[in-house]
Amino acid sequence: MITVNDLSKNLELLKKQNPLVHNITNMVVTNVTANALLAIGASPIMAYAKEEIEDIVSISNSLVLNIGTLTKDLIDVMLFAGSCANKKGIPVIFDPVGAGASCLRNDASKEIIANVKLSIIRGNESEIANLSGIKLKTKGVDSSGHVEDKKTLAKELSLKTSSVICVSGKEDIISDGFTAYSVSNGDVLLTKMTGAGCISSSVMGAFASIDNNYLKASLTGAVLIGICGERAALKSRLSGSFQLEFFNNLSAFDSNMLLKYAKIEKI
Amino acid sequence: MITVNDLSKNLELLKKQNPLVHNITNMVVTNVTANALLAIGASPIMAYAKEEIEDIVSISNSLVLNIGTLTKDLIDVMLFAGSCANKKGIPVIFDPVGAGASCLRNDASKEIIANVKLSIIRGNESEIANLSGIKLKTKGVDSSGHVEDKKTLAKELSLKTSSVICVSGKEDIISDGFTAYSVSNGDVLLTKMTGAGCISSSVMGAFASIDNNYLKASLTGAVLIGICGERAALKSRLSGSFQLEFFNNLSAFDSNMLLKYAKIEKI
Amino acid sequence: MITVNDLSKNLELLKKQNPLVHNITNMVVTNVTANALLAIGASPIMAYAKEEIEDIVSISNSLVLNIGTLTKDLIDVMLFAGSCANKKGIPVIFDPVGAGASCLRNDASKEIIANVKLSIIRGNESEIANLSGIKLKTKGVDSSGHVEDKKTLAKELSLKTSSVICVSGKEDIISDGFTAYSVSNGDVLLTKMTGAGCISSSVMGAFASIDNNYLKASLTGAVLIGICGERAALKSRLSGSFQLEFFNNLSAFDSNMLLKYAKIEKI
Repeated sequence: MITVNDLSKNLELLKKQNPLVHNITNMVVTNVTANALLAIGASPIMAYAKEEIEDIVSISNSLVLNIGTLTKDLIDVMLFAGSCANKKGIPVIFDPVGAGASCLRNDASKEIIANVKLSIIRGNESEIANLSGIKLKTKGVDSSGHVEDKKTLAKELSLKTSSVICVSGKEDIISDGFTAYSVSNGDVLLTKMTGAGCISSSVMGAFASIDNNYLKASLTGAVLIGICGERAALKSRLSGSFQLEFFNNLSAFDSNMLLKYAKIEKI
Repeated sequence: MITVNDLSKNLELLKKQNPLVHNITNMVVTNVTANALLAIGASPIMAYAKEEIEDIVSISNSLVLNIGTLTKDLIDVMLFAGSCANKKGIPVIFDPVGAGASCLRNDASKEIIANVKLSIIRGNESEIANLSGIKLKTKGVDSSGHVEDKKTLAKELSLKTSSVICVSGKEDIISDGFTAYSVSNGDVLLTKMTGAGCISSSVMGAFASIDNNYLKASLTGAVLIGICGERAALKSRLSGSFQLEFFNNLSAFDSNMLLKYAKIEKI
Repeated sequence: MITVNDLSKNLELLKKQNPLVHNITNMVVTNVTANALLAIGASPIMAYAKEEIEDIVSISNSLVLNIGTLTKDLIDVMLFAGSCANKKGIPVIFDPVGAGASCLRNDASKEIIANVKLSIIRGNESEIANLSGIKLKTKGVDSSGHVEDKKTLAKELSLKTSSVICVSGKEDIISDGFTAYSVSNGDVLLTKMTGAGCISSSVMGAFASIDNNYLKASLTGAVLIGICGERAALKSRLSGSFQLEFFNNLSAFDSNMLLKYAKIEKI
């Protein structure tokens, strides 16, 4: 049974260890992802050239693969980075942005899942459903359509991929195939700020690097993002101010906030 | 005769339909463009790989081509995306960022205009003049130099290209070749925030997807951006705060604001 | 002897001349770099395609090369842009982001230094040490490890490369090989905002275009960024607000602020 106290310990460990997270991510979110990692006490590096992947993985503590603005070449780079990370034994997080929106993304997702040992896969409902072979209507990179039973969805894909699955949404559902948790933190405004999901994946990458219980690491990340989103929404529901408050909360986030606001439940 | 009431209806339609706008844009503005589209009630997708263009266009409601950080490969992708969009019948908006600054941009602009049926072309004075064969001094991506008669400039290029032409500036001049309108909303600070023009083009892309009167769609976008710029400037003339207030206004923008502040005129 | 009065004159010259700075930079910082240049009164252009490099350099007043998200192709583009800029006689600034983190970055740095006449090289302690052949532990793009004598480090690399060297850090050390200055402005929060160093390099590029005393130009840039960072930190130590205040200060920065707060010292 994972408790909020466990998550709180992760937070303190992260700030102490300041892990380096290697992101191969999309070009929409590079800046905000880097700032988010810095704000929570991790260090970001973005590196995409195949020629330096091995070097960068060798100094990194986790790797995040995000297919938001995918190209053929990037698939190749991601597969190679994944294999380097697996060889080194650092966690790999996969964010299948827009899975379901194109064959390129679907095929790349399958290839990455088949060839890279992934610690965590995080996506919205459409994306995770599509990875599971359920053809859900997709609206580009935003979720649309609904799965009846998200817990079963997460559990089954988890068993199939041997990865922790996180289905982001109004409630985040996270499962390691055996147990499942829900996180009820968050606010709908997170879906109106581009990159909230991508940031979440990279933050999970930071926690996975200091906690090899990836279910717990994912939960810590989901709770952190959710709380920062809901605290920001209390300050402002306007686009610019919400984003500013979200980053303010990321940098102010501490054990007290986590213990006070976290809403996790074993389901 | 287009009235502010017509523009107001567009705004409500947009929020109801939540169109998906496919952006092939430059790497400077991806994040702010996505956030701007989300703020006004549309959905953004950025997708650049030729292999997925057809799939992405097939789920999108409009396409925006922006050559701000052009490469040879991207020209090819844009031409292909344009032809897919034309085949599907969704509007294509073209933003010739930096036209006049390099042969690559000039030639790409000509090729795109020659091969893609464009609904709207939006640029600053230098860019539109250069597309019209008038060699105006250009300062990179910012306008410099002046054309005497912007209305004639817009009208003639409109007739030549069969596209609505929007010349952004202190006053925006918009023409479909037969009639022309001016929009006097805006503030000079919009030229000090990178991407204001690019955002404007993508916002016009959102409106074009719900209104096939592209003159009216462009006007709605120009008025929205102009008003948000001038409201933001009233709050702060400093770089960071202006940008924040601009996005706040985008997300708060409604029919009341439009009806109260819009300054359009048939010219 | 350089005085704060000299720096203040640079500031006024910049606002009068509004130079165009051509940036070949990394994809994490494009947006903030463009906004920073606009805020201080310069104009940015980002252009990466080899086919347009010559045209863009021909209208630009300085060139900034930044290897933060390097690829093989970009090295080639940077070398070509550097040679065009040298031929035209405009200053070239080099930011060796992440030097030490990969062979690709190390080799590219060496190649750029060997083939392009650089006016200014700006990096953090790890990066400058690595360029100097001192293997300092690097944490990706963030500095770690320390050199005993940064003044000697800067002087020696300056003589070796015939460039002004700026070692950013708690104190910035800047040398032209003969004299050296320290700048004690700044705040540790600048290291928690992604792109602060990259922005600094581009701002130095702006000043180098109006002052061919590159030691003085670098000092002006370092002082400006340092003061804006420390003024922002006084307003807020939270991630979102700090970044907003930093940009507000960039756009409000004037001679009075410079004369009041600048802390430079000949060392």
